[in-house]
Amino acid sequence: MKSGRFYVVSAPSGTGKTTVLKRLMKELPDVTFSVSYTTRPSRQDETEGVDYHFISRDEFQAMNQKGVFAEWTEVHGNYYATSRVSLERYLSQGGEIILDIDTRGVEQIQQKYPHGVYIFILPPRHADLRDRLTRRGSESQEMIDLRLQNASKEIEKMDRYDYVVVNKKIDETVEQIRSIIIAERCKRDRVLRSLGGGGER
Amino acid sequence: MKSGRFYVVSAPSGTGKTTVLKRLMKELPDVTFSVSYTTRPSRQDETEGVDYHFISRDEFQAMNQKGVFAEWTEVHGNYYATSRVSLERYLSQGGEIILDIDTRGVEQIQQKYPHGVYIFILPPRHADLRDRLTRRGSESQEMIDLRLQNASKEIEKMDRYDYVVVNKKIDETVEQIRSIIIAERCKRDRVLRSLGGGGER
Repeated sequence: MKSGRFYVVSAPSGTGKTTVLKRLMKELPDVTFSVSYTTRPSRQDETEGVDYHFISRDEFQAMNQKGVFAEWTEVHGNYYATSRVSLERYLSQGGEIILDIDTRGVEQIQQKYPHGVYIFILPPRHADLRDRLTRRGSESQEMIDLRLQNASKEIEKMDRYDYVVVNKKIDETVEQIRSIIIAERCKRDRVLRSLGGGGER
Repeated sequence: MKSGRFYVVSAPSGTGKTTVLKRLMKELPDVTFSVSYTTRPSRQDETEGVDYHFISRDEFQAMNQKGVFAEWTEVHGNYYATSRVSLERYLSQGGEIILDIDTRGVEQIQQKYPHGVYIFILPPRHADLRDRLTRRGSESQEMIDLRLQNASKEIEKMDRYDYVVVNKKIDETVEQIRSIIIAERCKRDRVLRSLGGGGER
């Protein structure tokens, strides 16, 4: 059986993830971008079936009860979900798929589908962990503890990811994610399998 | 202490490895290319200290006895070796180094230095493992066995490598190796360490 590969891209809101993904879509015409389901209202510049599949809360509940989703999360009162059927169809066709999934959805995906590649985009304003860990001065012990705690929470989230890309310049971020995908295609077992000489080890 | 990263590139002779490495050198000006020592005579287009450090067999033996080399191999009666001192100096400076090493030298490097990234360039004429494994017809059982044996020897060699790049078109090969280096820089632990928020796990 053919076996495709999926890449999960996650990012805190305000990271510029949507812009990055749209650029990647143009540069990687042979990669499929999974279209999520959402109960949030569509914005004016969004197209049904391209940006999202827009559904009602009732539709979401009914679909979820039928086990249609590979993962789902609630963000600010709206549901977001990935279709299990279309993910599995693409994988069985041997294709490559990019999934745009919240950090909380990642755990569900990792339990059900091994061998995914997980990429975390970090906004540059978050990329000051060193500052927050080492800056000292007139601050209270509580402030220092809070900073340490917040930084370690962010790192913990990233534990589920293989790659971390700091989105300083959009061109660089797009090139880095593109490079990750090209490099993953060159992983030994993947190449040997495609040559018919070896299996996944 | 700073800790650099090294990439090992190996290839059977006639793969076009030298051309690939020269192109990479231009495209990756911030990466150092390790200059090997060799006892083979220099060719007309080769420059001492750029292509190789050319030394005599006596010099090689004396240096080897002093433990100067990180790895060495004999190929067609000539010795090739990598300087331990310069490798360790580059690594301690936090730099990135590309080493051009024979498959037999790789074992020595892996025993001494963990965390290297190993890339095997496969000539397209070798990339027909599937053919050799599945082609059947009027051939004798011995021929089939020989083919299977040769193919599995080649795969065994690749066991020590993280990535396999099939050198079909030089532009693609250069882009793939460049992508591998960019992707390795985005590995989670490496990024978190550079942000000061986490260690190698």
